Amino acid sequence: MRPQDVLPAEPAGALPDTVREALLAPMVDHNCRPVRRDDLTRARFEMLIAGTDTPAPPGTTHFDTPAGVAVRRWCAPALGLEPHVSPAIYLTRRSELGPAEVNRRLLCEAGIVAFLVDAGGNGPEPLSAAEMGRLGGAAADEIVRIERVEQDAAETAVSGVSYISSLETELAGRAARAVGLKSVIARRHGLDFDPARPSRGAVIAAANRRLADPKEPLTDPVLLRHLLWTAVDVARERNLPLQMHTGYGDSGLDPHRADPALMAGFVRALQPIGVPLVLLHCYPFHRAAAHLAAVFPHVYVDVGPAPTATAAGSAAVMGELLELVPFHKQLFGSGTRGLAETCHLGALRYRRGLARALAERLASGEWSAADAARAAHMAGSGNARRVYRM
Amino acid sequence: MRPQDVLPAEPAGALPDTVREALLAPMVDHNCRPVRRDDLTRARFEMLIAGTDTPAPPGTTHFDTPAGVAVRRWCAPALGLEPHVSPAIYLTRRSELGPAEVNRRLLCEAGIVAFLVDAGGNGPEPLSAAEMGRLGGAAADEIVRIERVEQDAAETAVSGVSYISSLETELAGRAARAVGLKSVIARRHGLDFDPARPSRGAVIAAANRRLADPKEPLTDPVLLRHLLWTAVDVARERNLPLQMHTGYGDSGLDPHRADPALMAGFVRALQPIGVPLVLLHCYPFHRAAAHLAAVFPHVYVDVGPAPTATAAGSAAVMGELLELVPFHKQLFGSGTRGLAETCHLGALRYRRGLARALAERLASGEWSAADAARAAHMAGSGNARRVYRM
Amino acid sequence: MRPQDVLPAEPAGALPDTVREALLAPMVDHNCRPVRRDDLTRARFEMLIAGTDTPAPPGTTHFDTPAGVAVRRWCAPALGLEPHVSPAIYLTRRSELGPAEVNRRLLCEAGIVAFLVDAGGNGPEPLSAAEMGRLGGAAADEIVRIERVEQDAAETAVSGVSYISSLETELAGRAARAVGLKSVIARRHGLDFDPARPSRGAVIAAANRRLADPKEPLTDPVLLRHLLWTAVDVARERNLPLQMHTGYGDSGLDPHRADPALMAGFVRALQPIGVPLVLLHCYPFHRAAAHLAAVFPHVYVDVGPAPTATAAGSAAVMGELLELVPFHKQLFGSGTRGLAETCHLGALRYRRGLARALAERLASGEWSAADAARAAHMAGSGNARRVYRM
Repeated sequence: MRPQDVLPAEPAGALPDTVREALLAPMVDHNCRPVRRDDLTRARFEMLIAGTDTPAPPGTTHFDTPAGVAVRRWCAPALGLEPHVSPAIYLTRRSELGPAEVNRRLLCEAGIVAFLVDAGGNGPEPLSAAEMGRLGGAAADEIVRIERVEQDAAETAVSGVSYISSLETELAGRAARAVGLKSVIARRHGLDFDPARPSRGAVIAAANRRLADPKEPLTDPVLLRHLLWTAVDVARERNLPLQMHTGYGDSGLDPHRADPALMAGFVRALQPIGVPLVLLHCYPFHRAAAHLAAVFPHVYVDVGPAPTATAAGSAAVMGELLELVPFHKQLFGSGTRGLAETCHLGALRYRRGLARALAERLASGEWSAADAARAAHMAGSGNARRVYRM
Repeated sequence: MRPQDVLPAEPAGALPDTVREALLAPMVDHNCRPVRRDDLTRARFEMLIAGTDTPAPPGTTHFDTPAGVAVRRWCAPALGLEPHVSPAIYLTRRSELGPAEVNRRLLCEAGIVAFLVDAGGNGPEPLSAAEMGRLGGAAADEIVRIERVEQDAAETAVSGVSYISSLETELAGRAARAVGLKSVIARRHGLDFDPARPSRGAVIAAANRRLADPKEPLTDPVLLRHLLWTAVDVARERNLPLQMHTGYGDSGLDPHRADPALMAGFVRALQPIGVPLVLLHCYPFHRAAAHLAAVFPHVYVDVGPAPTATAAGSAAVMGELLELVPFHKQLFGSGTRGLAETCHLGALRYRRGLARALAERLASGEWSAADAARAAHMAGSGNARRVYRM
Repeated sequence: MRPQDVLPAEPAGALPDTVREALLAPMVDHNCRPVRRDDLTRARFEMLIAGTDTPAPPGTTHFDTPAGVAVRRWCAPALGLEPHVSPAIYLTRRSELGPAEVNRRLLCEAGIVAFLVDAGGNGPEPLSAAEMGRLGGAAADEIVRIERVEQDAAETAVSGVSYISSLETELAGRAARAVGLKSVIARRHGLDFDPARPSRGAVIAAANRRLADPKEPLTDPVLLRHLLWTAVDVARERNLPLQMHTGYGDSGLDPHRADPALMAGFVRALQPIGVPLVLLHCYPFHRAAAHLAAVFPHVYVDVGPAPTATAAGSAAVMGELLELVPFHKQLFGSGTRGLAETCHLGALRYRRGLARALAERLASGEWSAADAARAAHMAGSGNARRVYRM
């Protein structure tokens, strides 16, 4: 895709060259999950666009969503089609090209310089981080999802005591090869967890219960908190940031318990420890996330898959994020999940949304061109290089 | 009112004919309450505009609100006056014409093809659904408010056991003549209710307590949940959707307990049952409602009276709804209550807000004209015809 | 600063003279805290802009925030510099002029006719209310922060019983010289407090505990509620309004407990008493605050420091406030704290944000020019004069 197709004609057409270059420069994508390598049925493709596990009701289609329209509009040209082609034509073309070529085109045109990939908890046939990097012409590193590591530890431990040590060993080992850790406690419990580190006795008791059925996904609050604090220890030793999923998710998550404001106590507890805390996604609580990033020195924020999901309405989301977020605290993450389309759209929406916000600030005289170029550069890659020590 | 007066001159002036026609086509209003037939004092009229039970403070007027200005701007021409006339002139003209003629003009110009009317819990002198249809040149059907039916059952039952059976019988009887059921548990309790169906024993015990004072509005959580689950049974048998009021309401409701995200557990419990759940109003939690509609196949959403209340600021509300809502999940509801003005403004705001959002999507190349026309048609009437089996 | 520099060129350029005059007329600032009189280090200046107690992370600066850019853009000209100068040049110029001259210029150009100053809980070297008035060419009155008064009462009382009487006496004495009272229970506890007045027995018991360590800031829920209700008594006797801080604050406050919707029960309890309740700040819960102002006759609202903090993004915040707020319920407060820059920016943002919203309403034909001028006048000073009986 040509640069002029990435940025909106109006109002970004009038952006100074330095700002356009900062917006179009390759970005670090610090929040993505693997793209699938298999050929997808229409039903599966629709569910992956819509971020749900169920088909659309009879007589309807998930293509009739903001994200569905965006696939036809923005991804079709990357596959050599006209914008706005029908779903059937889009999917036929996708099949003709085959998943490897589709993934290559869409990842490559996303303009990413490095993928930081959470490979945890995926569906079938995921690309590895290295493969995503190769297809996208980018570097690739790993983010360790701690709940996945816990699953492995639970399945091998023989007692509550050995659970604790095996969890520590396993986490430290995985962290040694990664650039960050990540927790999905928002999905497993909610962000209204007790911020205190649980006692060793309570952890052993809970672990003994867990070992009776270690294949179940972890939902015990004591063990989830123990896991989080163990991850904090590891992150501190290795100078790694800790990512936390916040904001709306799939149908299994309680949406009102995913507000990052709920974990202000945990954020305060982490402040003296100095581990950077990266809030992912956040929608529709991105104002809360931006506030935390503004008042706590160790909090960072991105809006992950929200611009892709909100599509033509995403400028308002970006606008709300920019109300409070310090320029040195904002990161780019595509929120890629399963489909290469989500990576392509994530990068496109981010650039377009930021371009629009910057153009407005320049047109009204609020910001100088140097301010705009600096902010775009920091959010696109500078902050990620600093936080992830790349 | 002429079509060109309904849609905003800019940016909708440039809308393709197919999109304009879809926006101006008669709509199904699935969320309205009766208009009053009596001549209203200024004090009563003001409170009905403002959605409150108290007069404005001394020296002020409820006309000095967003909705109050909108009445003078948009309803005055329908009564043969210039836009922006003073409150006194507006109310004098309203009196001269008389309520029947005022209601006829305002309902008729709203461009509604069918009213689905909740006649429960009204003030004095309501028009019946059939009368509203006749005045508005539209079909009319009934939505049964279940808390109203419970009141009748409570007043006739003689024991906890007979309460249960009389509630079932009464609800089934009323449902036989209706196109949907509706709950206002948000007002009576809050949406943070226990999603589980209560045990028969607990219901009988609570019902026995209730029968001591059956004229009181129901606020017992066990009986409210029993009522809701009885309604689910009836809705399933008769293939009816269940509407639920969510979002801000009058001064008696706890606003923070009206977030539909709070009832995600109930939504999940309903999913295998297949009863469509229609979230009404939702403001300012319309992003939460749109999210539920996006990830659950049986959830639908409208923003009811919010566009009327937010008036000149309603485009932002519509924009936020459109961030996530699938086109096949959005419904139009005017949120009419008491005044024919609220119906007129509800329809006008909805069309104008959607027109503006669609015009932006077309101008930026995000959507095709066919996308815009299809989405407008689905939201205006297509989805309601499907959900309410009209 | 010339008027044409205060209002945005577009779209406010086309505003009728009456509306421009109403927007530019001197305003009553009912929500400000003292400006400091001392020369500030860069580190302290940065933290005061950012509203945080910690420096920016190494290699970054709090000037790289929305508010930081705004200082360089909007305050630099008031100090005789070009817009967008570097932080170093800005701070050097600030030092050259000296704090007294800087304060004079910035306060004076803010266009304030009266400061209502909460002097409670400040850092070192605050200007008094009278001094702020003198520098800003304005009248000045005092708002009494009740938690500060409680601190004094706790330090002098010798028993639970004498605590109660000394609190009453102290509050009544301070109120006699003030135009309003203010509570920061949101910071000390959260707005999810029990709305009922606590029993005398419970208060005495809690007071006896408190007197063991009276220098600690008050956080006991029973005593905080007792303090609030004592303030209500005093406010009723003296016809004073009660201000309440709501919305996001510093890193010590639990942001999710600062939603004014949480205190709907307290608002209802106050309604028959008739004490005006003024919700301060509110962001990002300003829609909740506007709703309360719309449905309760005694509730008023301002967005305090939010426009300054959200800076170039503040138009959306003002837009959301205006969705529901009655014109006779909106107040202007700068949210000034420590830096004269925050006063200057508070007034500027408020005028620009309102100008933009009014210009949109006029351009789309939604409001008449008379509506716009009246609303601007009421919010800028008319409502404050009525509520504070000035």
